[in-house]
Amino acid sequence: MNVRVGIVGVTGYTAAELIRLLDRHPSANLTAATSRGDAGKPIHGVHPSSAGRNDVMIERFDPERMKASCDVVMCCLPHGASAETVRQLIDVGLRVVDFSADFRLSSVEVYQKWYDVQHPWPERIGVTAYGMPEFFADDIRSADVVANPGCYPTSAILPLVPLIKAGLVDPSDVIVDSKSGVSGAGRSPKLATLYCETNESIAAYAVGSHRHQPEIKDLVHRISGKDIDVTFTPHLTPMDRGILSTIYLRPTGGSIDDGMQAWKQQYDSSPFVHVVDHLPATKHVSGTNHVQMTLRQAGDRWIAVCAIDNLTKGASGAAIQNMNVMFGLNETDGLL
Amino acid sequence: MNVRVGIVGVTGYTAAELIRLLDRHPSANLTAATSRGDAGKPIHGVHPSSAGRNDVMIERFDPERMKASCDVVMCCLPHGASAETVRQLIDVGLRVVDFSADFRLSSVEVYQKWYDVQHPWPERIGVTAYGMPEFFADDIRSADVVANPGCYPTSAILPLVPLIKAGLVDPSDVIVDSKSGVSGAGRSPKLATLYCETNESIAAYAVGSHRHQPEIKDLVHRISGKDIDVTFTPHLTPMDRGILSTIYLRPTGGSIDDGMQAWKQQYDSSPFVHVVDHLPATKHVSGTNHVQMTLRQAGDRWIAVCAIDNLTKGASGAAIQNMNVMFGLNETDGLL
Amino acid sequence: MNVRVGIVGVTGYTAAELIRLLDRHPSANLTAATSRGDAGKPIHGVHPSSAGRNDVMIERFDPERMKASCDVVMCCLPHGASAETVRQLIDVGLRVVDFSADFRLSSVEVYQKWYDVQHPWPERIGVTAYGMPEFFADDIRSADVVANPGCYPTSAILPLVPLIKAGLVDPSDVIVDSKSGVSGAGRSPKLATLYCETNESIAAYAVGSHRHQPEIKDLVHRISGKDIDVTFTPHLTPMDRGILSTIYLRPTGGSIDDGMQAWKQQYDSSPFVHVVDHLPATKHVSGTNHVQMTLRQAGDRWIAVCAIDNLTKGASGAAIQNMNVMFGLNETDGLL
Amino acid sequence: MNVRVGIVGVTGYTAAELIRLLDRHPSANLTAATSRGDAGKPIHGVHPSSAGRNDVMIERFDPERMKASCDVVMCCLPHGASAETVRQLIDVGLRVVDFSADFRLSSVEVYQKWYDVQHPWPERIGVTAYGMPEFFADDIRSADVVANPGCYPTSAILPLVPLIKAGLVDPSDVIVDSKSGVSGAGRSPKLATLYCETNESIAAYAVGSHRHQPEIKDLVHRISGKDIDVTFTPHLTPMDRGILSTIYLRPTGGSIDDGMQAWKQQYDSSPFVHVVDHLPATKHVSGTNHVQMTLRQAGDRWIAVCAIDNLTKGASGAAIQNMNVMFGLNETDGLL
Repeated sequence: MNVRVGIVGVTGYTAAELIRLLDRHPSANLTAATSRGDAGKPIHGVHPSSAGRNDVMIERFDPERMKASCDVVMCCLPHGASAETVRQLIDVGLRVVDFSADFRLSSVEVYQKWYDVQHPWPERIGVTAYGMPEFFADDIRSADVVANPGCYPTSAILPLVPLIKAGLVDPSDVIVDSKSGVSGAGRSPKLATLYCETNESIAAYAVGSHRHQPEIKDLVHRISGKDIDVTFTPHLTPMDRGILSTIYLRPTGGSIDDGMQAWKQQYDSSPFVHVVDHLPATKHVSGTNHVQMTLRQAGDRWIAVCAIDNLTKGASGAAIQNMNVMFGLNETDGLL
Repeated sequence: MNVRVGIVGVTGYTAAELIRLLDRHPSANLTAATSRGDAGKPIHGVHPSSAGRNDVMIERFDPERMKASCDVVMCCLPHGASAETVRQLIDVGLRVVDFSADFRLSSVEVYQKWYDVQHPWPERIGVTAYGMPEFFADDIRSADVVANPGCYPTSAILPLVPLIKAGLVDPSDVIVDSKSGVSGAGRSPKLATLYCETNESIAAYAVGSHRHQPEIKDLVHRISGKDIDVTFTPHLTPMDRGILSTIYLRPTGGSIDDGMQAWKQQYDSSPFVHVVDHLPATKHVSGTNHVQMTLRQAGDRWIAVCAIDNLTKGASGAAIQNMNVMFGLNETDGLL
Repeated sequence: MNVRVGIVGVTGYTAAELIRLLDRHPSANLTAATSRGDAGKPIHGVHPSSAGRNDVMIERFDPERMKASCDVVMCCLPHGASAETVRQLIDVGLRVVDFSADFRLSSVEVYQKWYDVQHPWPERIGVTAYGMPEFFADDIRSADVVANPGCYPTSAILPLVPLIKAGLVDPSDVIVDSKSGVSGAGRSPKLATLYCETNESIAAYAVGSHRHQPEIKDLVHRISGKDIDVTFTPHLTPMDRGILSTIYLRPTGGSIDDGMQAWKQQYDSSPFVHVVDHLPATKHVSGTNHVQMTLRQAGDRWIAVCAIDNLTKGASGAAIQNMNVMFGLNETDGLL
Repeated sequence: MNVRVGIVGVTGYTAAELIRLLDRHPSANLTAATSRGDAGKPIHGVHPSSAGRNDVMIERFDPERMKASCDVVMCCLPHGASAETVRQLIDVGLRVVDFSADFRLSSVEVYQKWYDVQHPWPERIGVTAYGMPEFFADDIRSADVVANPGCYPTSAILPLVPLIKAGLVDPSDVIVDSKSGVSGAGRSPKLATLYCETNESIAAYAVGSHRHQPEIKDLVHRISGKDIDVTFTPHLTPMDRGILSTIYLRPTGGSIDDGMQAWKQQYDSSPFVHVVDHLPATKHVSGTNHVQMTLRQAGDRWIAVCAIDNLTKGASGAAIQNMNVMFGLNETDGLL
């Protein structure tokens, strides 16, 4: 089987990463790409790395035309705009992996409060498969829409869930201090992401107000059944890619070894989640769909450290992993 | 007055930063420099930036010779080795700013436990001036030895003390998540600090075991009279310079504005400590002795964010500031 | 004497560098700043590093108001726009250091061909002091307008002139391969200077068409009297600051030592230009007004290597140096 | 078919890149690895990115044991040491891709002059296949030893050969100004490659004396039959990976279009070499085996710009490409 893949919103970094991964995928390939601003150009006109490797032309979005050339669409649009587009793609019978936050949360109210928009398709909130095959593979397999997880939430949910579920840590005292590469801020020219603003500098942003905080809380609850109180602080770090989350926890009485075992049991059969003894650096997983996590004692606290690549496992790699599950391919195809 | 400055252990990054700052100091200049491995070379032989700007020759360490050419010595040696050298310098009548941890702590036991060496001059532990003029200017003015503060402790003590002293935060629940540039790891060739190991990567290190944790605890106690329980996690960040500390606190009932006011009162007359409204980035203070800090609400926690340059306010700038106080110069000389 | 300095166009990186240098200048200080887009804000509203250090408010441009508060104006506007503004400042009796290319060249025709604009004040072309005190100190001393040199030209003219003047190299075969930090591209948000576009990447740009090529050619001719044929290629390098120019030359029969001597004689009394034996790196001069250059044999060619900081000696440091000369201050004030 | 691959000298960056590429290769896998210093450790003990992905144990070198578990050996040893090891591997009947310079040149004299060692197996000099399948695929197919090309030579030979062969440029006037990422300097701890020495800095090194100069000259001659006079200057650039070579040429009368056509004809069937219209950046080929090159006019010179990844096409990617050719696999297997 060869899966034909379309990308809606092809100009950004998540799209570039999809193109990179599809280039090496043994049983999927890029067949269509759309962009409002760059229609009419070849893909290498916006991503020069594609020169000589890819001859897809960028078109204006047209769901019927996508239906003719694609089996699945990766929708890389911003929240709000995305839901409406996803609906049109579903209406013509396509399957979709949605990169926006529009279908990730369980509650329309929470969504509308944090994202400050009216949701265009609220019926789908809370019933859409969350694209983390480590927990939702069955839902994903048959889904028409998969809500691709947020980058920070991936780096927090994966280590948190097994510890919370096993009752090994206090759910009311969780701090996630995350450090992300600059690609997470997107490819639109902005002062804050100019080279000379972010290079040789690290800073916190959106302190107390980042939209991934409710996503972490929601998903940990959905998977573990427990309500957590989480403080989440993202930092912009001078590197292209990678997220490191340092997570401060209060153990309830078990040992570090108990925590490591809970992780190993949960992720035993996962091809991408690795429980390691060393302190993971983002470089150890850079450019891959792999996750590394470890757990340490610090006084009477536990500190979990989790490293992912924000563009791969935190975005486009997860999307390909979801696609592999949706179409019955090997979960690791194109991702090693 | 012109203060004649010697540097013992001139090959590292803190020495290079001292040279840079002295080059522009209106009333101090470098008159001697020593190094075991590089004696006989001109300074530009180890710091090419000095070419054409400085003609001091590197010598082997000899306290009598230093006495002849210097008024004050900056001792940039590792802990353990430093205390012995400082003693020899004091014995010949020199004044010393010591960059090591040897005289920072109040307790010989704590020192020996964390640094795992026998202290060669334990009488001086607990009675040496801690080189933070924001709190200890009187001690520094008349000191023969000043213990120059650790880089991470500077970024934690300055924001913590006024909040702890005022009772605005719970002293038993303090987390300091710090991110440092690579220069903090020194200039000795090691795998871990090679460009290709640290570039494009962030990682935690020394989780639960970094020696600056007891220094933070000790100094906050010494200044505020309160005992704190602090979890401290340092991270190696892909940049030359800078420390950002993100500090998680539990407020006791006051408002963010109360916290900001406590800071402003404390640092009102300090030329270097700035309470700001924006979220500080390390770049905002890079290459300077300035400190920026702000305070934010995040759910029921407070988050203090403090940015310094680890080589300037975190090391050599603080040393020059201490020297200025010791010799009655303007506190900001050479530091703007 | 205290020189009062105004900055027109205060939002960019050259203005930030001026502010940094003036902060430590012993006899000059910032008294006014203008910007079309940011009038009404304090300076730290556009440059957060100024928080607590500078309380100048940004205003809209008004030459009369500047006359009241300034002795000299640093005009940091783009070419074309700058000449008109400079004229208004001169008309009210102010002295000006102009950062644009508007008054650098000797020929209106060459200017209009390369910059593709009608020059608003052509009478001043060819008669304005070129702000390189190493060659034009007398002109600068009495000038009302000083044309501050381009960054790349500074890194090429300084090494080229003594060799060309002495007849040591063939003027018809000169290649300047330059590598610049990203700050040279300005602070306006553009795709090409986003962090994730330039980080971890090096690329040539404006090959065969960069406007600094005629400036190099013009100034070498003006100073040495000889016409050169120069190929100039700039490269965008993943670093904030610095220019390294690697210059390929054909010797006419002399030795490398003859070339080094020609340099040493020329720059003997210059406080900033250093002829060195090592291969200079941009880091050796980073954040300073210093210049390092060396000369090597490679087969039958000579290779000159010159390092400057593009924001300091390549822009704002040179401007302060020019101001120092204009107002009879020490040439190195504020620049060490 | 599944090719079993061994790596000798597994601790460095080229070995890490081999492991990364083999991880995704559809018909080859890593079966053995050796290192003098790290025998007894698992591979993730030296390359933490391998944690959970690879369970090969590092052994001491033993040709008989390698023969039992491998079909081909990647020899990642330094020059001099490598030739002797390659001989032992050949003696037991293994095929080898050698990463050192020991078998790249045509002349024992040139080798011994530039590398300053006695060659242990001089019979093989000049008769060993040079691992550039774009020119030597037939030799590689049947070779027992393939000399994997140098990184800089790859970035110079590929653009130079078609232009020289077609007589479009003067062979006596060739300048190659190359900029490389730091990984090219290896993984042994050295002052010069510490993060804080190379970050935020660019510098030339080995001016007029780099060993890749004779390799460029030799291979251009071997392929085109023409003798060239080449000046080669490498620069250390603050990035992990990538080489950009800016090549200054004198055209003999043809047009830029003639040059581009000569390239396109030569590389028409090559899956990795792309003639592009934009100015290539190293980022466009980062992490891939692809090559991008373009040609521009600059006055009466031509400037060719060529970008590769120094670790992939410049080392380990080329080695896998060679292995694919040696074992009759698809040339692009594992390399997309």
